[in-house]
Amino acid sequence: MYRNWLRKFPDLPADFSALEKPSDLAAWELSQWLPAHSFTLVKEPDLGDGFRISGSTVTGGETGLLYGVWALLRHMQGGAPLPAESSPRYPLRMINCWDNMDGSVERGYAGRSLFFEGGEFAYDPARIRHLARMMASVGLNVICINNVNVHEPAQGLIAERLPELSALADLFRPFGVRLMVSVDFSMPLREGLPTADPLDPDVQAWWRRTAEKVYDEVPDLAGFLVKADSEGRPGPFTYGRSHADGANLLARALKPFGGTLVWRCFVYNCRQDWRDTATDRGKAAFETYQPLDGLFEDNVILQVKNGPFDFQIREPLSPLLLSMKKTSLALEVQLAQEYTGQQIDLYTMAPLWREIFEDLPQENLSAAAAVSNLGRDENYFGHPLAAANFFGFGLMSWNPDFSPAESVAQWIRLTYDFSAEQADNLKRWMLSSREIYELYAGQLGLCWMITPHTHYGPNPSGYEYDLWGTYHRASRDAVGIDRTEKGTGYISQYPPELADRYRDPETCPDNLLLFFHRLPYSFALKDGCPLIQRLYDDHFEGAELAARMERELTALPFPEPDAGEIARRAAKQRENAQNWRDVINTFFHRLSGVPDARGRKIYD
Amino acid sequence: MYRNWLRKFPDLPADFSALEKPSDLAAWELSQWLPAHSFTLVKEPDLGDGFRISGSTVTGGETGLLYGVWALLRHMQGGAPLPAESSPRYPLRMINCWDNMDGSVERGYAGRSLFFEGGEFAYDPARIRHLARMMASVGLNVICINNVNVHEPAQGLIAERLPELSALADLFRPFGVRLMVSVDFSMPLREGLPTADPLDPDVQAWWRRTAEKVYDEVPDLAGFLVKADSEGRPGPFTYGRSHADGANLLARALKPFGGTLVWRCFVYNCRQDWRDTATDRGKAAFETYQPLDGLFEDNVILQVKNGPFDFQIREPLSPLLLSMKKTSLALEVQLAQEYTGQQIDLYTMAPLWREIFEDLPQENLSAAAAVSNLGRDENYFGHPLAAANFFGFGLMSWNPDFSPAESVAQWIRLTYDFSAEQADNLKRWMLSSREIYELYAGQLGLCWMITPHTHYGPNPSGYEYDLWGTYHRASRDAVGIDRTEKGTGYISQYPPELADRYRDPETCPDNLLLFFHRLPYSFALKDGCPLIQRLYDDHFEGAELAARMERELTALPFPEPDAGEIARRAAKQRENAQNWRDVINTFFHRLSGVPDARGRKIYD
Repeated sequence: MYRNWLRKFPDLPADFSALEKPSDLAAWELSQWLPAHSFTLVKEPDLGDGFRISGSTVTGGETGLLYGVWALLRHMQGGAPLPAESSPRYPLRMINCWDNMDGSVERGYAGRSLFFEGGEFAYDPARIRHLARMMASVGLNVICINNVNVHEPAQGLIAERLPELSALADLFRPFGVRLMVSVDFSMPLREGLPTADPLDPDVQAWWRRTAEKVYDEVPDLAGFLVKADSEGRPGPFTYGRSHADGANLLARALKPFGGTLVWRCFVYNCRQDWRDTATDRGKAAFETYQPLDGLFEDNVILQVKNGPFDFQIREPLSPLLLSMKKTSLALEVQLAQEYTGQQIDLYTMAPLWREIFEDLPQENLSAAAAVSNLGRDENYFGHPLAAANFFGFGLMSWNPDFSPAESVAQWIRLTYDFSAEQADNLKRWMLSSREIYELYAGQLGLCWMITPHTHYGPNPSGYEYDLWGTYHRASRDAVGIDRTEKGTGYISQYPPELADRYRDPETCPDNLLLFFHRLPYSFALKDGCPLIQRLYDDHFEGAELAARMERELTALPFPEPDAGEIARRAAKQRENAQNWRDVINTFFHRLSGVPDARGRKIYD
Repeated sequence: MYRNWLRKFPDLPADFSALEKPSDLAAWELSQWLPAHSFTLVKEPDLGDGFRISGSTVTGGETGLLYGVWALLRHMQGGAPLPAESSPRYPLRMINCWDNMDGSVERGYAGRSLFFEGGEFAYDPARIRHLARMMASVGLNVICINNVNVHEPAQGLIAERLPELSALADLFRPFGVRLMVSVDFSMPLREGLPTADPLDPDVQAWWRRTAEKVYDEVPDLAGFLVKADSEGRPGPFTYGRSHADGANLLARALKPFGGTLVWRCFVYNCRQDWRDTATDRGKAAFETYQPLDGLFEDNVILQVKNGPFDFQIREPLSPLLLSMKKTSLALEVQLAQEYTGQQIDLYTMAPLWREIFEDLPQENLSAAAAVSNLGRDENYFGHPLAAANFFGFGLMSWNPDFSPAESVAQWIRLTYDFSAEQADNLKRWMLSSREIYELYAGQLGLCWMITPHTHYGPNPSGYEYDLWGTYHRASRDAVGIDRTEKGTGYISQYPPELADRYRDPETCPDNLLLFFHRLPYSFALKDGCPLIQRLYDDHFEGAELAARMERELTALPFPEPDAGEIARRAAKQRENAQNWRDVINTFFHRLSGVPDARGRKIYD
C-alpha cells in the first residue's frame, strides 16, 4: 500500500480490532518505534486533545496521548521540534469530502471516492484506516464524508443507511477521528412532511427525532454540515426564514448529543446579469450573515471561505471572517486544487494559510475546515507532492503559527530519503510553487480568467458575459473592478484600517490591485513598472519558472511511482504555464496595443 | 396526432397494410381527396420519380405517381402552381438523422429520437408513417436514421439488428422512402478482424459479405453514410490510405446491390493551436478531397457542407463544391438549427438555400442532403414554424429553382387557416427571419462568436484560444482573418472570378467581409458606414426586429398548441437577441473604444 508520509513507520497490525481507543493506538504506535518501556504514557482526561512531554513521559487526554506520540514520532523520524506541551488552537480540525455516493468526487483530482461507488458504501477498510492514521499523525479529528451538495441517495446517510455510517465511524474511532455528514435542508420533505420550514413545530420535532436516531447509531458523530440556499440548494429562504432560523433548527436538534452544526456561508446570486454593475457577488456573504451575528445557538459554527469569492488564486480575506464577533466561525480552505492546478500543477498551500492566519483574529474562530484533496488514486492525492497540503493543513490547524517552511521540510523528511541539499531544493520549489502558479495564472488580483466549468487553463473572457457575477470588464484602456465606495462599495465591509489600506491604489498590495481597483494599463506599480508590463513580465516569468521547476524536480531521485507521476505532471504544468502566458499576454496585448518592453514573443 | 402541413388531409387508414407500393398510396391519397375516377393514374415505369399531369390523367413512374398526386393535392389545397410535368433535379433527396440508439439526438432541438431509446429500436409506427408521408408529400426519398458519429450499439444496425432495420424499412417503403444507415469505418475490428485497412483483402471481403447480408434483409437500402477521420472518428488515415481508398472499399461492396456510398467531406484538424496563424481550417476539405477528384467509384457521392466551416450563419460557398468536376457530389445543409437558434429562434432557411443553389454548378451535383430537425416532440420540429424548413427542403431539393417565397406561402396555406393578410404577414416574417437572426447574431461574416459546446447565445471569445481552428483575432484596431493570398491563402481555392470578387474588400459582399479580410474598425462599407458602426447598427436593429416580430407573431391567430409554443419561443428569441446585441456591442466597444454614433446604450 502507498503510505505517503507514513512510509517509514511500521504497518498497522493485521489484527487491528484490539485497539479500540486512541490511547490504545498511541501505545501501539510508540511500541513499534521505541523499545518497550522507554516512554510512559499517562492519561489525564481533562487535557483532551492536548499533551505534555517531559523526560520519558507523555501525558495527555484520551486523544492527546495519540497526538503526543505522533509529535514524538515526527520529531524522531522527521526532525520536527518537540514541544514540551501542546494543545490545538481549534477544537475541530476538519476535512470536508465532496464525495457523491455514485462514486464521483465533485472537484476531485485524485480519482474516485474512497467511500462510495454506485450509490453504495464501497471502501477498503485498510485504506480507510490508513487515511485515519494519516489524519491522526497531524492532528486532524473530523471528516465529513459526503458532498455538501447532497444528491440522492446520500440523504439516506442519516436515515436508512445509519448502520453503514456507524460501521465506518468504528473504523475511524481509534484514530481520534469523528465523522460528520452533510445533510439536505429539505430532508423532511423526503421523509413525507409537507414542509421543511424551520419554524414549523413538526419539522423541529422531525429533526429532533432524526438526531436521536443518528446518535443512537453513531454516538460520537461530530455533527452535521449544511450548504443551504446556494447554487440551487434548498434552504430557509424557501420559507422566508433567515439563516439563523435554519441553522438553529438543526443545532437545537443536535445539542442534546453534543453535536455541532456547521453552516456554510456560501450564498450569492448565481444568476447575475453581467450588465448589472451595482451587484457585487463579493458582498453577498457579509450582507447575508453579518446582520445575524449573535443570533445563533452556541453549537452553531458558521464556516466561511477564506476569500469573498471562491478559492481563487488570490483573494483578500473574507470580510465576514473579520466581523462576526458573537458567532463561532470556521475558516474554510480548499486542499482540492480546483482553481489552482488540479493536482497537476504543483501548488503548496502552507504559505497561503500563513498569510490568512496572520490577518485573522483568532478569538471567535473555533474550527478550521479544508475541502479534501483525497481520492482513490493509489497515492490518495493524485500528485505525490499534494500530500504535503493535507499534512500541512493538519499542522497549521493545530497551530496556525506553525511555519510553512518547517511544515514542508518535515513532510519531505518523512516522505523521502533525500540528502540535505536535495531536500532543500525540493522545499524551495514547493514553497515557491504558489507564487509561480500565481505568476502565470494570476493577474494582480483579477480572478476568474480560468476556463469555465473545468477550471483548468486560461480563458480570459470565459466568465465575462455569464451569470456568475465574476467579471473583470477589461477594455482597451483599463481593467478591474472598482470595489471602493465609488464603485461597488465592497470595501466598506472591512474594518477601517484594512479598508484604508485597500482603498488607495498606492497602499493596496500589488497582488490585489485589480481586485479592488479599475486602473489604466499605464498605472505605475510600487516599483514604477506600468501595470501592463507587469502583467507581461509575470506571465513570461511564471512560464519560465515552471519549465525550470520541471527540469529540477525531474532531476531529484524520487522513488517510483512518484518519479513518473511527478515528471508527467510537471510536463503538463509547463505546457499549462506556457498556455496561460500566451493567452493572457495576447488578450491584454490585443486590448491595450502596448508592446512588451523587452520584445518577447506575444502572439497576435 | 399533430400533423403539421398535412393537417387538412384525411388520416392514413388504420388498416394500412393493403398499401404496399407508392403507386397504391398515390391512388389512396387521391381517392381521399377527389371523387372516385375523376383522375386516372397511369404508370410509366421509366419515368421513375417523374410525372406528367394532363387533363385528368397523372402519368408517372412507381414513385412518380405518388409525387404527381402530391403535386396535385398541394395545388388544390395549398394553391401551389401545377406543373404539366416534373422530375427531380437530384435523384437522392435525403434527410440525415443524427439519432443515437440511446435515444439522444446530436444537435437535436425537438426532443428525443423518433427511432431509438435505451439502445434499442423504439418507435410508434403511426408516427413513423406520418413522417414518411410528410417526406413523400414534398418529394424526399431517403432517410438515414442514425448519427454519423456511430456509437455502440448502432454498429449493430448492419449486423445483429438487421431484422429490425428491415421492419422499419417496410414502414417507409410505401411512401417511396428508402433507408440509409451511417456505418463505422472500423466496423471490421468490432467483428474480429485485426485491421480495417481498406486495401486489406480480408477487409474487402468482409464488407462484401456484410453488404450481401444487409441487402438480403433490406433489398432497397439506399446505401451507407460515412464520417471518417473526423473529430475523433476512425478512417482510412489510420492505415495511411486516402479517402478514395476508404470510400471505394465500401462503394465496391455496395455496387452489386445498387447501393450508394455517401462519404462526408468533413475533415479538419480539430486540435489546432490558436497560436498557429498559417493553418486555416476552412482549407482542409478542399486540400483533402480535391486532389482525389476522378478517383472515386461511380456509386460514391461526396457529401459537402454548404460552407467551408460548419453551418455558421454566413459562410461563402465551400470551394470544394466548385472544384470536383469528375466526382458525384451531394450538397449538405442543416435543418437542425445548431448555430441558428436551435428551433427557439425563428430561422426560415429557404432564402439561404436559394443563394447556395444560385452559385452552385449543377452538373455533378447528384444529391441534396439535410441534417434533420426532427424529434419526438408532439409537433416533430420543436418550433411549429420550423416545419417549413423540412417542407421547403423537400421542394427545393426537387427543384433548386423553386421560389423561397412560394415555398413558404404554400406551407402556410397548407398549415393554417389564415386570411390573405395574416398569411402574408407571417410569410414576410418567415422570409426575413434569417436576415433578422443574422443582424443580431452575425458579424459581417465573422463566425464562431457563439457559446462553445451549447451553440446558443453569444460568447465572442469562446473559441478564440481553443483548438477548433475558429478564430476572429479581434484586437483594439482590427478584426477578422485575412484569407487572401497575403493571409492564409484560402481564397485561392476558388475559381478565379469568385476569388477576384472576394479578394477586394471593395467588391467582397459586406456580409462576408470579415470572413475574408482583416480590417480596421474605421473601414468604410459600401454605403460609407464605418465597419464598427455597422456592427452596432446591425445588433440594435436585430434586437429591435426580434421584439417587433414577437409582437406581430403573437397577434396572429395560430391554433393551439402552436400559439403557445410560438409565443414562448418568440419571447426567448427576443431575450436572446437582446443578449447578442449587448454582448457583441460591449465586446467591440471595449476593444475599439468607438462610441455609438446614435448614442444608444452600450454597456461598459
